[in-house]
Amino acid sequence: MPAYQIASIPGDGIGPEVVDAAIQVVNKLAKTLGTFQIEFTHLPWGTAYYKEHGQYMSEGALDTLRQFDAGIFGSVGAPDVPDHISLWGLLLAMRGPLQLYANVRPVRTFPGTKSPLNTATQGIDWMLVRENSEGEYAGQGGRSHVGQEWEAATEVAMFTRVGIKRIMRFAFETAQSRPRKQLTVVTKSNAMRNGMVLWDEVAADVASDFPDVQWDKMLVDAMTVRMVMKPESLDTIVGTNLHMDVLSDLAAALAGSIGVAPSSNLDPTRKNPSLFEPVHGSAFDITGKGVANPVATFWSAAEMLTWIGEKDASAKLMQCVENVCRTGILTPDLGGSSTTRDVVDAVCAEIEKLK
Amino acid sequence: MPAYQIASIPGDGIGPEVVDAAIQVVNKLAKTLGTFQIEFTHLPWGTAYYKEHGQYMSEGALDTLRQFDAGIFGSVGAPDVPDHISLWGLLLAMRGPLQLYANVRPVRTFPGTKSPLNTATQGIDWMLVRENSEGEYAGQGGRSHVGQEWEAATEVAMFTRVGIKRIMRFAFETAQSRPRKQLTVVTKSNAMRNGMVLWDEVAADVASDFPDVQWDKMLVDAMTVRMVMKPESLDTIVGTNLHMDVLSDLAAALAGSIGVAPSSNLDPTRKNPSLFEPVHGSAFDITGKGVANPVATFWSAAEMLTWIGEKDASAKLMQCVENVCRTGILTPDLGGSSTTRDVVDAVCAEIEKLK
Ligand SMILES: CC(C)[C@H](C(=O)O)[C@@H](O)C(=O)O
Ligand SMILES: CC(C)[C@H](C(=O)O)[C@@H](O)C(=O)O
Repeated sequence: MPAYQIASIPGDGIGPEVVDAAIQVVNKLAKTLGTFQIEFTHLPWGTAYYKEHGQYMSEGALDTLRQFDAGIFGSVGAPDVPDHISLWGLLLAMRGPLQLYANVRPVRTFPGTKSPLNTATQGIDWMLVRENSEGEYAGQGGRSHVGQEWEAATEVAMFTRVGIKRIMRFAFETAQSRPRKQLTVVTKSNAMRNGMVLWDEVAADVASDFPDVQWDKMLVDAMTVRMVMKPESLDTIVGTNLHMDVLSDLAAALAGSIGVAPSSNLDPTRKNPSLFEPVHGSAFDITGKGVANPVATFWSAAEMLTWIGEKDASAKLMQCVENVCRTGILTPDLGGSSTTRDVVDAVCAEIEKLK
Repeated sequence: MPAYQIASIPGDGIGPEVVDAAIQVVNKLAKTLGTFQIEFTHLPWGTAYYKEHGQYMSEGALDTLRQFDAGIFGSVGAPDVPDHISLWGLLLAMRGPLQLYANVRPVRTFPGTKSPLNTATQGIDWMLVRENSEGEYAGQGGRSHVGQEWEAATEVAMFTRVGIKRIMRFAFETAQSRPRKQLTVVTKSNAMRNGMVLWDEVAADVASDFPDVQWDKMLVDAMTVRMVMKPESLDTIVGTNLHMDVLSDLAAALAGSIGVAPSSNLDPTRKNPSLFEPVHGSAFDITGKGVANPVATFWSAAEMLTWIGEKDASAKLMQCVENVCRTGILTPDLGGSSTTRDVVDAVCAEIEKLK
């Protein structure tokens, strides 16, 4: 029987609540199905750790992570630490260095949620692929003459042909694996003439290896219009770190599923463990109230199961979660009145029925 | 009687059709009201000019423009010239060098259009302010080892304290002049730690001079969610060149008014003539068919009238345009079957009634 070692990094805010919920549900699934074993190891990184140790992660954190088959991550960020310190202390300190270059976000109208768009007559079903290791989030740039009237600051987006090529290949493969075999490449090469033009060139290059994939290009501004006006014209979408950060939030909102949106930070070469996380943040306003929506983390855990090789178990988990949402057992953010506990119990009860 | 000299730069695609329509309507207005004089001077810049002269504008174009009180611009871009050449050849070659640092885009549900959002129960009424002279569109960056496997390219967003301060002041003043006195500042300072953090600092600085304006900050990704889910919670919005490029297209789509969206490229110091342009592009697919929607250019011309001092005439023009749209005289992009000519005639007939 396959046995998996999973790192659990709950982090801050509601992170621990939703990660704990997901672990309960996955443990229940493993026990019920009896077809695989899974063990979660708690890594206490986050703002509390930072306050005690002066850094968000332990020494050698990346090597620690490399001992696992995958990781599940909650959220990072706290009201009393500047966001750029917490995010670069933990989340962005894993994505780049572990070369988790593909951030994948499935977005679809989910049971219990409803698209706010009246243009989305057939529902939304998109697969968003975000470059996750360079570009606008390369961490480059600086400030000169800080505080002076003539202060100047840069944010440098760094792109490499290798970086673009590998995400583009991944996106074409993703598109190819879906029924519509359709990819839209997002850039802003009309106004930005260097890295963005390189994106265009590499896209055309890689496309020639995938003659069965229908692809087109969109400028990021016009893309928002298309997502709103013609949602059904889109399937797989790929773009830069910043562009897809923005478009993936928009996508989840348009599908009505921002509270349930999952994301995968993948190293498609499988040299490093991939990380799975809900798209939502640490949500300090509801932390500790027991009403955090665990569905995004369940969905992220299901994506993890697929990634490590348990496709069947993953599909079953999603079926159970969708059944629960369909019956209206929803947390307040989705208009329901259930607690995190209620949702966990209901999903576990669904899993029990799989026996 | 005041007399205004206006530069007309129709450009490419449907640009000449919509600019010509706007000139007819404004001339009719001036003649009918008899309270001001206005003269349009045609500047033949654009892709045809480029093909003949090897450059998009004439020598000394900026000085030529400086002789005018304002300019009306159609669109630039043609299928057979790379977009980054045409845009940097004309549009971006005016915005930056003329220090037209405030790009202003009113977005509201317009007669004849309908928001695709069921969350927009009270309609949408936003004022978008985009930094228009630096940031991601500063034109900086480069490519090294072009064509090699290890090619690297940068896009450098350049921010200055002066540049941020002046747009921030302008945004606070704009917010202050509107009934709700409310401003949202958009950044991405959790992931981008230099220019974006400077934005945050300058925002807080400038805010202290406007105690009567209620303001808050949003990350650009989360902002898209708020625009979709809580459109009525927003009023005036300010952000960087790229962020607001994206958000203003999204805004127009969410308001259902992408075909009618106007924009102003302002030099608030009034040292240089400001430029007024429809948000839509050159739309080569419908060029020459006589069905281009002129409403965005009418609205842009109305913004121009306000800017040069003809507030009353501007309001009257908008009233006439809205009346026409309300009666369903709409071009095909808005679901109607009218031609550009029909719309021009109908607006002129409305203006005639002002006598
Ligand atoms: C938390 C933040 C750094 C992150 C990002 O911007 O990448 C988040 O918004 C996301 O989309 O994963
Ligand atoms: C045409 C293009 C350069 C321009 C921009 O990106 O600024 C357009 O999209 C706009 O919003 O005015």
